[in-house]
Amino acid sequence: MGGKRIKLTVSYEGTRYHGFQRQPTGITVQESLEKAIEQLQGEPVRIVGSGRTDAGVHARGQVVHFDTEAAIPPERWGAALNSVLPDDIVVRQSEQVSSSFHARYDVKSKTYRYLIDHGRVRDVFLRNRAWHISRPLDLESMVTAATAFVGTHDFTAFCSAKADVGNRVRTITRVDIEKDGNRIWLTFMGNGFLYNMVRIMTGTLVEVGAGKRDVAEIPHLIEAKDRTLTGITAPPQGLYLWSVDYED
Amino acid sequence: MGGKRIKLTVSYEGTRYHGFQRQPTGITVQESLEKAIEQLQGEPVRIVGSGRTDAGVHARGQVVHFDTEAAIPPERWGAALNSVLPDDIVVRQSEQVSSSFHARYDVKSKTYRYLIDHGRVRDVFLRNRAWHISRPLDLESMVTAATAFVGTHDFTAFCSAKADVGNRVRTITRVDIEKDGNRIWLTFMGNGFLYNMVRIMTGTLVEVGAGKRDVAEIPHLIEAKDRTLTGITAPPQGLYLWSVDYED
Repeated sequence: MGGKRIKLTVSYEGTRYHGFQRQPTGITVQESLEKAIEQLQGEPVRIVGSGRTDAGVHARGQVVHFDTEAAIPPERWGAALNSVLPDDIVVRQSEQVSSSFHARYDVKSKTYRYLIDHGRVRDVFLRNRAWHISRPLDLESMVTAATAFVGTHDFTAFCSAKADVGNRVRTITRVDIEKDGNRIWLTFMGNGFLYNMVRIMTGTLVEVGAGKRDVAEIPHLIEAKDRTLTGITAPPQGLYLWSVDYED
Repeated sequence: MGGKRIKLTVSYEGTRYHGFQRQPTGITVQESLEKAIEQLQGEPVRIVGSGRTDAGVHARGQVVHFDTEAAIPPERWGAALNSVLPDDIVVRQSEQVSSSFHARYDVKSKTYRYLIDHGRVRDVFLRNRAWHISRPLDLESMVTAATAFVGTHDFTAFCSAKADVGNRVRTITRVDIEKDGNRIWLTFMGNGFLYNMVRIMTGTLVEVGAGKRDVAEIPHLIEAKDRTLTGITAPPQGLYLWSVDYED
């Protein structure tokens, strides 16, 4: 066939969506993208994303691929889709990729960022975009504690108990915590993340920052492989799938 | 009477509102604040704002005052109101002021900021929060042109033709234009602004930046006092009432 495989880099505000992945009920990002592509090419399509994001979670750089026979030039798909997509989804880039490219299987690393609104009073412009925490947080303790995540570990303790069983070993290459005014950004980079893993790591680090947990606790929590010992799952609205990297 | 005058500093995302000021139809920020105050004190109230903002325009620091007989301590009004207000309005501060304080008459200066999203592709997280302009803009020309606004002038040419007639002399003390990544912030400080004045100044400066107008044109436009000669009215969603200053 003369089809092309197209790779899209997509940002979305997740507030209105029941997550990325198609669901029997509730509008999803995947469904909205598929409808927009279908509208342009006149044929139904199934897209493949780099992974799911939960309801309320945002993406700055989600990556998807799909195959098409349409004559639209690959680099024009972005602008064309943006003209028909709802305004809380924006395609940032479109390009043709090899037919062997796979948005999920070929992921080399992912970066997630989590935003905490640390103002005394909630910032109205971070509504649905951050976790508002007004109590004091000791950032230095959080930074120290976070270093324990870096490396290759079994992250069972930082994975939703509802997740499918399977290999729970992941490699985290970087955790950064930066403060910019009242905004605290936590950045997590790794080869993959388990279900709710970033939100549970964030919740646990916040408990360290609030003085509810010892800064040296993380290695023991990882070791114990017990979800009931780790922190709360930080709320979805502060989480951003920031970027997805692939092998050249 | 044993009443207190309370001053509130309020931020809101204007997207959902038909502007600040009460209207016969359509929900407004004023009405939402008045309902919240009434809910807390059990008595109807009328608040006075520093001025109007249009539909879709935001505020970081709108100021209002009202009088109350309620026993709520002045500094607690903020938290109390935030517990009953819709989540796109946040009271940042509440304090008791002298009964002679007036949120509109006593304004010494106001700062408005206008946000341009200057990315090639629209930033989904600036949806309803900025004016997306993808064409090139010569910032240096805009900065040079903007200096002509500073001073005391008759701003008839930069005022909506629909505005009530009256004294159209205003003093602009500062215009700054800064770029931060893809975000261009225009900051206007002055003793008062006419209807649509910041949006028309912004629209005109953008036309200078786009090369559609000469950088030296502004003084002549001010002089001509003719709205038909000045630029377009920039869209409301990029405008923020940033702060309102009063005499001590």
